Amino acid sequence: MHGTTRGKAGTSAAPAADLSADHGEAMHRLVTELYPLCRSITGDGVRQTLAALLAYIPLNVCEVPSGMEVFDWTVPQEWNIRDAYIKNGAGERVVDFRAHNLHVVGYSTPINARMTLAELRPHLFSDPAHPDWIPYRTSYYKETWGFCLSHRQLEALPEDDYQVVIDSSLEPGHLTYGELVLRGSSTDEVLISCHVCHPSLANDNLSGIAVATALAQQLAARELRYTYRLLFIPGTIGAITWAALRQAHLGKIKHGFVLTCVGDGGHPTYKVSRRGNAEIDQAWRYVLQQSGAAFEILPFSPFGYDERQFCSPGLNLPVGCLMRTPHGKFPEYHTSADNPSFVRPEGLHDTLQLALTTIDVIENNRRYRNQKPMCEPRLGKYGLYSSIGGQSASDYQMALLWLLNMSDGDHTVLDIAERAALPWDLIKQATQALLAAELLKAAD
Amino acid sequence: MHGTTRGKAGTSAAPAADLSADHGEAMHRLVTELYPLCRSITGDGVRQTLAALLAYIPLNVCEVPSGMEVFDWTVPQEWNIRDAYIKNGAGERVVDFRAHNLHVVGYSTPINARMTLAELRPHLFSDPAHPDWIPYRTSYYKETWGFCLSHRQLEALPEDDYQVVIDSSLEPGHLTYGELVLRGSSTDEVLISCHVCHPSLANDNLSGIAVATALAQQLAARELRYTYRLLFIPGTIGAITWAALRQAHLGKIKHGFVLTCVGDGGHPTYKVSRRGNAEIDQAWRYVLQQSGAAFEILPFSPFGYDERQFCSPGLNLPVGCLMRTPHGKFPEYHTSADNPSFVRPEGLHDTLQLALTTIDVIENNRRYRNQKPMCEPRLGKYGLYSSIGGQSASDYQMALLWLLNMSDGDHTVLDIAERAALPWDLIKQATQALLAAELLKAAD
Amino acid sequence: MHGTTRGKAGTSAAPAADLSADHGEAMHRLVTELYPLCRSITGDGVRQTLAALLAYIPLNVCEVPSGMEVFDWTVPQEWNIRDAYIKNGAGERVVDFRAHNLHVVGYSTPINARMTLAELRPHLFSDPAHPDWIPYRTSYYKETWGFCLSHRQLEALPEDDYQVVIDSSLEPGHLTYGELVLRGSSTDEVLISCHVCHPSLANDNLSGIAVATALAQQLAARELRYTYRLLFIPGTIGAITWAALRQAHLGKIKHGFVLTCVGDGGHPTYKVSRRGNAEIDQAWRYVLQQSGAAFEILPFSPFGYDERQFCSPGLNLPVGCLMRTPHGKFPEYHTSADNPSFVRPEGLHDTLQLALTTIDVIENNRRYRNQKPMCEPRLGKYGLYSSIGGQSASDYQMALLWLLNMSDGDHTVLDIAERAALPWDLIKQATQALLAAELLKAAD
Repeated sequence: MHGTTRGKAGTSAAPAADLSADHGEAMHRLVTELYPLCRSITGDGVRQTLAALLAYIPLNVCEVPSGMEVFDWTVPQEWNIRDAYIKNGAGERVVDFRAHNLHVVGYSTPINARMTLAELRPHLFSDPAHPDWIPYRTSYYKETWGFCLSHRQLEALPEDDYQVVIDSSLEPGHLTYGELVLRGSSTDEVLISCHVCHPSLANDNLSGIAVATALAQQLAARELRYTYRLLFIPGTIGAITWAALRQAHLGKIKHGFVLTCVGDGGHPTYKVSRRGNAEIDQAWRYVLQQSGAAFEILPFSPFGYDERQFCSPGLNLPVGCLMRTPHGKFPEYHTSADNPSFVRPEGLHDTLQLALTTIDVIENNRRYRNQKPMCEPRLGKYGLYSSIGGQSASDYQMALLWLLNMSDGDHTVLDIAERAALPWDLIKQATQALLAAELLKAAD
Repeated sequence: MHGTTRGKAGTSAAPAADLSADHGEAMHRLVTELYPLCRSITGDGVRQTLAALLAYIPLNVCEVPSGMEVFDWTVPQEWNIRDAYIKNGAGERVVDFRAHNLHVVGYSTPINARMTLAELRPHLFSDPAHPDWIPYRTSYYKETWGFCLSHRQLEALPEDDYQVVIDSSLEPGHLTYGELVLRGSSTDEVLISCHVCHPSLANDNLSGIAVATALAQQLAARELRYTYRLLFIPGTIGAITWAALRQAHLGKIKHGFVLTCVGDGGHPTYKVSRRGNAEIDQAWRYVLQQSGAAFEILPFSPFGYDERQFCSPGLNLPVGCLMRTPHGKFPEYHTSADNPSFVRPEGLHDTLQLALTTIDVIENNRRYRNQKPMCEPRLGKYGLYSSIGGQSASDYQMALLWLLNMSDGDHTVLDIAERAALPWDLIKQATQALLAAELLKAAD
Repeated sequence: MHGTTRGKAGTSAAPAADLSADHGEAMHRLVTELYPLCRSITGDGVRQTLAALLAYIPLNVCEVPSGMEVFDWTVPQEWNIRDAYIKNGAGERVVDFRAHNLHVVGYSTPINARMTLAELRPHLFSDPAHPDWIPYRTSYYKETWGFCLSHRQLEALPEDDYQVVIDSSLEPGHLTYGELVLRGSSTDEVLISCHVCHPSLANDNLSGIAVATALAQQLAARELRYTYRLLFIPGTIGAITWAALRQAHLGKIKHGFVLTCVGDGGHPTYKVSRRGNAEIDQAWRYVLQQSGAAFEILPFSPFGYDERQFCSPGLNLPVGCLMRTPHGKFPEYHTSADNPSFVRPEGLHDTLQLALTTIDVIENNRRYRNQKPMCEPRLGKYGLYSSIGGQSASDYQMALLWLLNMSDGDHTVLDIAERAALPWDLIKQATQALLAAELLKAAD
């Protein structure tokens, strides 16, 4: 009903690049490839973006018609733009959509008129705090038109007889999004979401698109416990539309996170879900703590990205948000300075590795029960203990002891890992060794 | 049985001054007006004080007879004093009650005798740490007499033939207190209490009397949800007497606070109730945090003012204590240096404003339920959102989003205000806007 | 079945020294007396140690046969050693068990052979980080032999024709431990445990043996509420053996702690039980906080001493561990530098006093109910309040007020003491005064 798989256009013959192969360089190339497209919450920019992703992952591209009621909202008319400019009296394009798609206020209605600077002025937007950058502005729900330009250019505009043209259309059409489902042994799901509605802005959010695509490639190659649902959706209205259409299905979502602004040079930042103590929140906190690098955990707040929708009180899904530098905390945010050179391959790479580790934690997080709970088992019998006594315990031995001590059927492996403050690879290895020795058995 | 309203004596024709009108000056004038009266836990000093307050608020003045059993206590005999002095051999009053009523130990029994310095000495009290100040001492429950004087004066007293006179009476009579009830739409009550038993001491507690009187004036002019009960009572025995008489009524008290030492130059200090997490504790904490100025929150302890009685384990009322600098933390405490010049108009004013805000929080604190809980409602439809997107949210928009996100029937407006860390006026305004838009409805 | 009382060998006529009498000197003499014995997890060294303790306390000495199955373990063969050395080609003992019993790896199998340095080398253990000290090594569960020596000596060993002799035996025998039960009015028990399996090592754990012995002497002279069970057991296998034999009895243990490394110059360190909030954990935390000296509280971890066994998930006893400097945190740990001069009389004394106070807290910790819970009782009636008012409350008055305020049947005396942050002697004295005045009565 609400999804049709499209074939890959033009790229189907070439093998998909492994986006995790070269420390983020491949993800960065994808960011650069998608950067010129003029995305919005609807329209051909989103379609072109999803079509390009089909070269990497087998997305379902879904189209939802304008006018459909989705919770308190209505799917809007589809917006497309071909050209836009402001010409001066000499006929020169002084502001030109073809030079930068941020020059046009998103969802601008068509116009073709001559006017004075005074008439034009209320339709011009700039950012005096960053006078060389073009700001990003939209007007999705109030029909108007406008241009964005650098404050330096705005201030230099002379009185003149300007020709103002926006060759756009705002008509009934569709809202487009991409969805990829990777089946695991359980029908319980992990939701990973990114937004695809921003025009030429790189960290916000081509970085999220690139990391989500790389994650999908990695997960597709694995045996999975959970089913993974990756969304490439327009922000807000896309998430609302998806949630309204999938309402009966939302109970399947056991964990999730939104990926946004994940390519800059800042440290990782995880914003917890509305629940605050969901397993996904615990997993991200543990993985970031164990990373040995700087990080930040933010409390939930009802502003940000699509976690706003997933964490509305009626849904209250266990969905957090992974960022590096959060929106609004880097000056380039929502300006022309958020371009591909602002995004760093190593930032994308680090984000991907952290997400893969977090997913590995979630995949392997269970409750076990120690089968020899009366005093310690004699680990030497199972080949799990050094034979020469009197020395300190290694981290691996500590992992064994923590797992045995706290595996009482109440604590999860993640509870134990956090308490032990040991790296995930040691905890996972020790869990497997204790399972192999039949000293642990699944409690649920 | 336990309350008789008296007419205002002499002042009934004059319009009552608005004690909140001039940044605390009017409250300070009330402190100065009441300062000379010789209050104690019983007697005419309390009656004169309450009579003076009748010029401002329509108090009920209640009289409870000596000898009445009140819990583990007995209402004491009534003490009155007309004159007291120590004359030297030359007939000069070297210590004179008329110069300062702190010179006499409270509840001193009558005496008229000649004696040597050695005989007099055990009845003299001074404070070597503050040699110029007269300390405040009482002996309510052991019949004795005594004088307080500055340590400098005490040390300079020569051997002499002293005449010692205390013209007091300690006889069956009454304990007197004032009570004012302001009816709200609910019979649930807020208790506000101050003590009226200290003689010429200004911060402790004419400041509390002045702020409580001003609060009563302000509340009397409002539509109230709760019923407010303001007590002007002698410390300890007054509170115990009131609680014993009102025992069946105590369950109506849902919130409360004691006002004491609220006029000095220090920052506000709130001592939480024995419950520790009562709504009144939460409200004071939030209001002080949002004030932007220094403040302190103290844990409950079983020493202090009448919160000791209200928070005894058998009552356990949700009653905290608001102070500025706490008793015992300013050197002037319980000495002649706690005079009207120690109390500052701006301190009284700030206390009053904080108390009014806290009461406004309590009055408006309810649980609501978001009527569009599935994803966010489209606030633009209700005129509640800026139409040009891409910019940061204002504090007002954040207040709207927090209220919508957390109004799930579990969280109160105060819970949300604390979590959002936004000022009360924004939260209140946003709540009203969401109610008007029917996006929130009362959950209880 | 598992215990036989032995007579005191040779010392029964002499009166037992009071180990608490002289600020730790007597306990230090006991450490020095026991230091030369070559203890291990079985064998005559443990027997000699327990026999020496019989001069101080009437221990039961228990013998458990080799081969008995105890949970996941088996009681090992008994190890005894008479002599051991490495002779060089000149016939000189270059490494000599008689010089220091740490020279032999614990549980070394017998050997008598000539070999080159290259053949000998894999059997030699040293600690390059501390080149002058002999390290302590064992091999209980893998049959091998070895020598420990200073790294400086190891590096200086020339090529030679070495004669290597270990005159030991590893044969079926017994595991030996000591147990002392002091009966209280209740059959509920307090477990106090120390390990007796280390050869010439002083802080780890002759200090624990000395303090446990002194505690036993002190407790034997008192009227006790709880029954006290003191264990002098080989580490790990001794605790496991005891727990397996006493399995049906473990439910009687309401509190407990392990004593180890309690004689060095560091501050006291208490490691909480696995439960984390057991009454014994609370008592130790309170006593250390009230001590006024530096201390540390460690979270539970599944490494350390016999709390590992007592806090295994199947037992989960409320047993913590008291140390001064924890194992592994002092460089002398498990080396020849942990000798009697490393242990200080004042460290032993301080540990003993803290343990006695903690036990006094546990003995007197109950829930009471205030018999005058409506407002405060009039303390003056009971002789519990100063008659001259207006002054600050003393700590003793605060103790009275806290006990009255919080004795609602829910809070224990220890809860109140912690909350009041007052010393134990004041709390205890105030409790007794309020009981005498019948203002408190036992709630359970």
